[in-house]
Amino acid sequence: MTDRPQTKDAANSMWGGRFAAGPDAIMEAINASIGFDKRLYAQDIRGSRAHAAMLAAQGIISDSDASAIGEGLLTVLSEIEAGDFPFRAALEDIHMNVEARLKEIIGEPAGRLHTGRSRNDQVATDFRLWVRDQCDAAIGGLGALIRAALSQAEAGADWVMPGFTHLQTAQPVTWGHHMMAYVEMFGRDLSRFQDARRRMNESPLGAAALAGTGYHIDRDATAKALDFDRPMANSLDAVSDRDFALEFLSAASICAVHLSRLAEELVIWSSAQFRFVSMSDKWSTGSSIMPQKRNPDAAELIRAKIGRILGATVALFTVMKGLPLAYSKDMQEDKEQVFDAADNLLLALAAMAGMLSDLSANRDKLEAAASAGFSTATDLADWLVREAGLPFRDAHHVTGTLVAAAEAQGVDLPDLTLDEMQAVNPAITGDVFSVLGVHNSVASRQSYGGTAPDQVRAQIARWKERLEKEELA
Amino acid sequence: MTDRPQTKDAANSMWGGRFAAGPDAIMEAINASIGFDKRLYAQDIRGSRAHAAMLAAQGIISDSDASAIGEGLLTVLSEIEAGDFPFRAALEDIHMNVEARLKEIIGEPAGRLHTGRSRNDQVATDFRLWVRDQCDAAIGGLGALIRAALSQAEAGADWVMPGFTHLQTAQPVTWGHHMMAYVEMFGRDLSRFQDARRRMNESPLGAAALAGTGYHIDRDATAKALDFDRPMANSLDAVSDRDFALEFLSAASICAVHLSRLAEELVIWSSAQFRFVSMSDKWSTGSSIMPQKRNPDAAELIRAKIGRILGATVALFTVMKGLPLAYSKDMQEDKEQVFDAADNLLLALAAMAGMLSDLSANRDKLEAAASAGFSTATDLADWLVREAGLPFRDAHHVTGTLVAAAEAQGVDLPDLTLDEMQAVNPAITGDVFSVLGVHNSVASRQSYGGTAPDQVRAQIARWKERLEKEELA
Amino acid sequence: MTDRPQTKDAANSMWGGRFAAGPDAIMEAINASIGFDKRLYAQDIRGSRAHAAMLAAQGIISDSDASAIGEGLLTVLSEIEAGDFPFRAALEDIHMNVEARLKEIIGEPAGRLHTGRSRNDQVATDFRLWVRDQCDAAIGGLGALIRAALSQAEAGADWVMPGFTHLQTAQPVTWGHHMMAYVEMFGRDLSRFQDARRRMNESPLGAAALAGTGYHIDRDATAKALDFDRPMANSLDAVSDRDFALEFLSAASICAVHLSRLAEELVIWSSAQFRFVSMSDKWSTGSSIMPQKRNPDAAELIRAKIGRILGATVALFTVMKGLPLAYSKDMQEDKEQVFDAADNLLLALAAMAGMLSDLSANRDKLEAAASAGFSTATDLADWLVREAGLPFRDAHHVTGTLVAAAEAQGVDLPDLTLDEMQAVNPAITGDVFSVLGVHNSVASRQSYGGTAPDQVRAQIARWKERLEKEELA
Amino acid sequence: MTDRPQTKDAANSMWGGRFAAGPDAIMEAINASIGFDKRLYAQDIRGSRAHAAMLAAQGIISDSDASAIGEGLLTVLSEIEAGDFPFRAALEDIHMNVEARLKEIIGEPAGRLHTGRSRNDQVATDFRLWVRDQCDAAIGGLGALIRAALSQAEAGADWVMPGFTHLQTAQPVTWGHHMMAYVEMFGRDLSRFQDARRRMNESPLGAAALAGTGYHIDRDATAKALDFDRPMANSLDAVSDRDFALEFLSAASICAVHLSRLAEELVIWSSAQFRFVSMSDKWSTGSSIMPQKRNPDAAELIRAKIGRILGATVALFTVMKGLPLAYSKDMQEDKEQVFDAADNLLLALAAMAGMLSDLSANRDKLEAAASAGFSTATDLADWLVREAGLPFRDAHHVTGTLVAAAEAQGVDLPDLTLDEMQAVNPAITGDVFSVLGVHNSVASRQSYGGTAPDQVRAQIARWKERLEKEELA
Repeated sequence: MTDRPQTKDAANSMWGGRFAAGPDAIMEAINASIGFDKRLYAQDIRGSRAHAAMLAAQGIISDSDASAIGEGLLTVLSEIEAGDFPFRAALEDIHMNVEARLKEIIGEPAGRLHTGRSRNDQVATDFRLWVRDQCDAAIGGLGALIRAALSQAEAGADWVMPGFTHLQTAQPVTWGHHMMAYVEMFGRDLSRFQDARRRMNESPLGAAALAGTGYHIDRDATAKALDFDRPMANSLDAVSDRDFALEFLSAASICAVHLSRLAEELVIWSSAQFRFVSMSDKWSTGSSIMPQKRNPDAAELIRAKIGRILGATVALFTVMKGLPLAYSKDMQEDKEQVFDAADNLLLALAAMAGMLSDLSANRDKLEAAASAGFSTATDLADWLVREAGLPFRDAHHVTGTLVAAAEAQGVDLPDLTLDEMQAVNPAITGDVFSVLGVHNSVASRQSYGGTAPDQVRAQIARWKERLEKEELA
Repeated sequence: MTDRPQTKDAANSMWGGRFAAGPDAIMEAINASIGFDKRLYAQDIRGSRAHAAMLAAQGIISDSDASAIGEGLLTVLSEIEAGDFPFRAALEDIHMNVEARLKEIIGEPAGRLHTGRSRNDQVATDFRLWVRDQCDAAIGGLGALIRAALSQAEAGADWVMPGFTHLQTAQPVTWGHHMMAYVEMFGRDLSRFQDARRRMNESPLGAAALAGTGYHIDRDATAKALDFDRPMANSLDAVSDRDFALEFLSAASICAVHLSRLAEELVIWSSAQFRFVSMSDKWSTGSSIMPQKRNPDAAELIRAKIGRILGATVALFTVMKGLPLAYSKDMQEDKEQVFDAADNLLLALAAMAGMLSDLSANRDKLEAAASAGFSTATDLADWLVREAGLPFRDAHHVTGTLVAAAEAQGVDLPDLTLDEMQAVNPAITGDVFSVLGVHNSVASRQSYGGTAPDQVRAQIARWKERLEKEELA
Repeated sequence: MTDRPQTKDAANSMWGGRFAAGPDAIMEAINASIGFDKRLYAQDIRGSRAHAAMLAAQGIISDSDASAIGEGLLTVLSEIEAGDFPFRAALEDIHMNVEARLKEIIGEPAGRLHTGRSRNDQVATDFRLWVRDQCDAAIGGLGALIRAALSQAEAGADWVMPGFTHLQTAQPVTWGHHMMAYVEMFGRDLSRFQDARRRMNESPLGAAALAGTGYHIDRDATAKALDFDRPMANSLDAVSDRDFALEFLSAASICAVHLSRLAEELVIWSSAQFRFVSMSDKWSTGSSIMPQKRNPDAAELIRAKIGRILGATVALFTVMKGLPLAYSKDMQEDKEQVFDAADNLLLALAAMAGMLSDLSANRDKLEAAASAGFSTATDLADWLVREAGLPFRDAHHVTGTLVAAAEAQGVDLPDLTLDEMQAVNPAITGDVFSVLGVHNSVASRQSYGGTAPDQVRAQIARWKERLEKEELA
Repeated sequence: MTDRPQTKDAANSMWGGRFAAGPDAIMEAINASIGFDKRLYAQDIRGSRAHAAMLAAQGIISDSDASAIGEGLLTVLSEIEAGDFPFRAALEDIHMNVEARLKEIIGEPAGRLHTGRSRNDQVATDFRLWVRDQCDAAIGGLGALIRAALSQAEAGADWVMPGFTHLQTAQPVTWGHHMMAYVEMFGRDLSRFQDARRRMNESPLGAAALAGTGYHIDRDATAKALDFDRPMANSLDAVSDRDFALEFLSAASICAVHLSRLAEELVIWSSAQFRFVSMSDKWSTGSSIMPQKRNPDAAELIRAKIGRILGATVALFTVMKGLPLAYSKDMQEDKEQVFDAADNLLLALAAMAGMLSDLSANRDKLEAAASAGFSTATDLADWLVREAGLPFRDAHHVTGTLVAAAEAQGVDLPDLTLDEMQAVNPAITGDVFSVLGVHNSVASRQSYGGTAPDQVRAQIARWKERLEKEELA
């Protein structure tokens, strides 16, 4: 994303605005990519080193040239990482900046590096390596977030809270159960990044401009050196497609939707009206004079991130729509979108993991809210069907009558006496109390994946094992 | 998508427009889903039959009730498929329409079907089954399209055509190679739908409203009966998330981008200026008086489909953004988007497969275009480096001189004599002709995945084997 | 949006799925538009009648032919409106369906209707007329919604409620002020539709296929007859562009964002934790056994509508991207998106107007919430700066001390005595109470557009006048 | 868009990735906006100067304080413009950076600047001023582009080229006519930016945090000083809405679609197969060894820009969806999207204006292409109806026969003799030749807005006058 200062004296007559400088400046501004693609430097150098080593192994360049190239590239790498590298816009992109500097360092052998490849397969390789790294980073970030949610779930496996539909209390659930719902979502996100990584993990290197090359190169060797599973099987496809980036963006967008939902809950739960949770100071801002005010800034920013990530996704889809094969310059617009989406996804994942780790759930408030509104009325109706054998319709009628009785007394259902209940329907026994009250209610929901604390703890255990196994613990 | 007739006399003062009828009509119009969710009838009935059978096996309902329910549902199914079913808007959705009709048919036992489940897990199950079917259909459609592209590739494995960058001829490639680039893309699309299917193939049934249930249900049994791999592990997640639909839409969007690119090429290739291909009459429209005009309607419509599929994707992402758990009514907006995207993707896949099967490539035009513009100049330069040992820069200089010489004579590079070449650089030998001319050029590109006909044929063979193995042949 | 029944026996080998029927069925399915463009019937007939009358006036067809055409088209119109019209898919679109039926009714003269025009300018005219009607409907719908919000504002111009930032109470505002914020937003939406209508109100009719025509037609006459301001000035542009539809969709998306924000507030305000408002039964659904539960279904559905409207917008932008002039078949995808967006916007506007009209704000709850959290602390600090001349930093310090004192006593700021206050800072006078307490606070915010009831009432009056003037009252 | 260097040693166990540094670093990274909102410095300072002057005029601060503030802010401005300003991330945003520096420069009076306003109305004012500037810049850029297109149109008002539908030649048009189609489109874009500017041109300043203020400020005065038409009428709305940014983005997206269409045409027209135009070297890149290759890089990049602009639009719509009033931190995500979209739109406009100015249309190629494919067959058919009185169907039959005759002889329609024509239908007279041949064809299309050179020239004249009048010439 460009950050060009505005020319203040606007518009000479031809350029009508910001671009007083005329065609050359405009063409450079629209054409050069070094402003953003320099982020690919490590991937570019890694790819070139693999290529040079392969060329030597195949006898296409000499061992001494390969060695000079390999060493020279490491020098370039350390210059860039030290912040000493003189990036030049006139050299347009990262590939030419690196190559030109290599030439300054090692002289003539630098020219042999480009044998049997072209900028088209080079950029495809660099970008693929970069996106693959982001998959790994997203997997790591999701692992940390899942661990944070698991900790919350473990602490509150049997804390009762309202289960909402339409933001209205429907049935009591446990805090642990609610947290584990997000563990499932983030777990699927994690597997989507794993699938995307596996699918993109093929090497474009050696596709050359688009048709392959007449040099006797060894694409398996460079693929292996770059930890790709295999070379891509069609050179035109290798330089033409960006579906790996679209898949990364799509997975990121789905993950960002999940984050937005949890963030929205945290914002609502932090309101004075809910007070279900307290954010730590690290993740919120307060008011020096209003002691109860604590703005959930981080949650709000996380909620917003789906915007730019979905926007980046739409951007790249739109760019790629209807492009003929093979390379078109339109595709230069692929990188900034993925850079921005990846940066923001990883930032949001880290912030959410941190916020969740520091979050205090207000156990009393949660339980009080769960108990309001006759939230176990459906448990009563179910008990009447299941244990007392009433038809569904009758069970509903009896329940409605009992709720009305409780409401009239200003009490909750479990506060009614057995006598009062039997006066409405004599089939009711003392066993009914085993499902009334929010603790009984949640304890009774023992179906697989249900909210009963036992079920929740079983899922926590399963997830810990899975993280262990996937080396994400 | 609604197709409400416009009221002609517009606007009484309160409703300001189309909704003269007042609140009830507006609420019904915005609330009822039967207009679109009736498409889920087969999935709904299948899910209910599995649920009833499980309830009986668990002793929750009687065998005779289960049997009546099972038979009754089959009757409903046949009524719907015969077009005799009286869908009623007052019953809001497909679930209540089916259930109400079941009650009319079998009476009181119908009421027991809903034991231990709710509309929330029921709709999640129905929709998941439907989307899973669309994955299968997309996989089938992609199989057919890949076969069509393979046939084209096989027929023209050694036909020479221009390989374009920036829609400018860069290097010669083969028709087969170009077709195989799309085979790779569609192959990745296919694997994306396979991954999505696998990930979504878990059963929400038994999650009930959101918390699970106190009935002793067997979620494994219903999962198995519905060909799910397992039950979902968290009941809140089961009724709250729609990421499986987002993933389907994302995969569909990526596939639609690939289709748009091939479609764009077909439109350009059909122009009078290119004439690379001829569409069959089935897929184009002509002019009664302009014999050469053949409008590539089908290709244009396929090109456009990425629009509505991406639009549907954005729609559902936007709907899901920031929704608190568990079910919110917003989520009723999920189905129409997926219905429309799936319908149009499958239609576009079928149309592209058909169009490609009927397509005639104009071999002569392709070869003539490939030969123009000194398209083997890079082969010459490469040869000078590789075989004659010239530095890259010198090789380029020599090539430029020879191209200028050929241009001056109005001939192509291979038409120059060896003498003429050696006059420019004496290191050139007769072997140079082995890479000049488009046929030599493509034949020389033997790197793995390159455009050499041998390489192309090897990839065709590999793909046939894969289709065989995946039972898509 | 298609609603094709699925073939159950799937996939013969060629079509791999839903399209067992082969190429003809596929081409018809992808090509025909009559399934959706029949909604343009009234516009199509109106356009044709204007064209025929003009042809006669110019002497291009005879008066008797024009008269037969005009009458015949009215017959077709009444057939369609009576539901008797036999739409035929084989005739592809609404234009050919109408024309073919006209020929059946009036015979040979029907053929003269198409003189000097083509399907390209015909569809552009029909669609433009339809979208213009939607602008009018949206303006009407916004008028009704603004009136509903004004009624709420008027009733509660001085009711105090929390003004939130970050969903945390920041400062007290009035219910009327909050409602008027939406009046401003919807008012800008209204003006956007007015601008869009004005800009699109030019006639494409007479552009013919793309180049204009050699017939001596009078485009001013048809423009006038169709209530267009003038004919479009370039025939290629007239048949090629759809920016009027993109502008309509953009305005609809902005309006839908506004609706989503109000809907979100209504959902949150309806929660048990807030209880700021009560929805009427018409716009929500309850639970037979949980008396306090009232699901804000309509608000949730309105909140969701931005999804499909933004999706439709993205869809059409994507379709139009990169299309060469003039007409391409891709553009057939324009209508369904606009139909769906317009239907859903108008529905959402009507539902919101209805919901707002029936809404009861809970004045006591609002005031209690406004008073909590020391919401007038900033008023105190401002008073200390303004009236007591304290530097900002000191004012903050004094305020913090007083808030702490109030908190310690469990009271709000105005409950402190003047002595208690002067003990902290002697510059405080009795006048301070004029800004403490939520009613004083809001009354003091007299800056233009501020929340003081006087200011709110002045804005209500201004809006009533504007609606009167624009004939929207 | 952030450009954070990747930490190389990845993931400590808590932060799972890029954010080894823990919560503080993460919160700063997600929370601080100074990295991008510093672009608002000029607007921020202008707004503050207007506010300070008003405070003094109202007697709220002293004249000497106001003068110190005003001078101090000018010093800050010059420091920033000189590149000497020490931006500090710890100060979060541009407002606090400016204010803190002001305090360093002028001391205590700096604290009085913030009287009667808050960061909420301050940022709303700054951003609105910035977007308004972009409207002006876009209007200027469109003016320049329209002038470039007008020059092309004027030079080639009577050059004949194919008018395409479906990228197939349909009827001849003129180069001038084609260029003028874009003038119309860009002209509507221009008016959209004018409308957006007018609608957004209201001042939020003085809305304070959200409720207005108790200070006796003069919002009319600050509005006037900042060239706003008036103050916004509702303080909650002023700090809560961003529809002005959404409208800017929507207008930019529509404009970018228009640019993408012209860019696509330029790419296709530059292909070896078309050669309708030649790009100048400034706007394309060549090949040192393939003399005919000229890659239309600038056109491709312009074509791509709709991607990121539409993406930015979707991003902000998604961010704003469902946000409760008033300010939420989510809204901090508004600026980067608009910055990027504005930068890229202005760049694309300038590049297109430059490219079009330097473009050479190949008049001979255009005419030859227009003449191929019996492109005047419809003119013949029209003549037969119009002048010879044949029914439409017969006219088509005769035309088809004559085209077949011409095709058999290998000639075009005007090459047939009158005898040959009369042999097919004796009603044909010598006058028929007046519409045959591409020059006659275009000359005959005299309907308003048609392709006849006279019509084109009339439109050019009208546009020159309009530009003159709007001071864009």
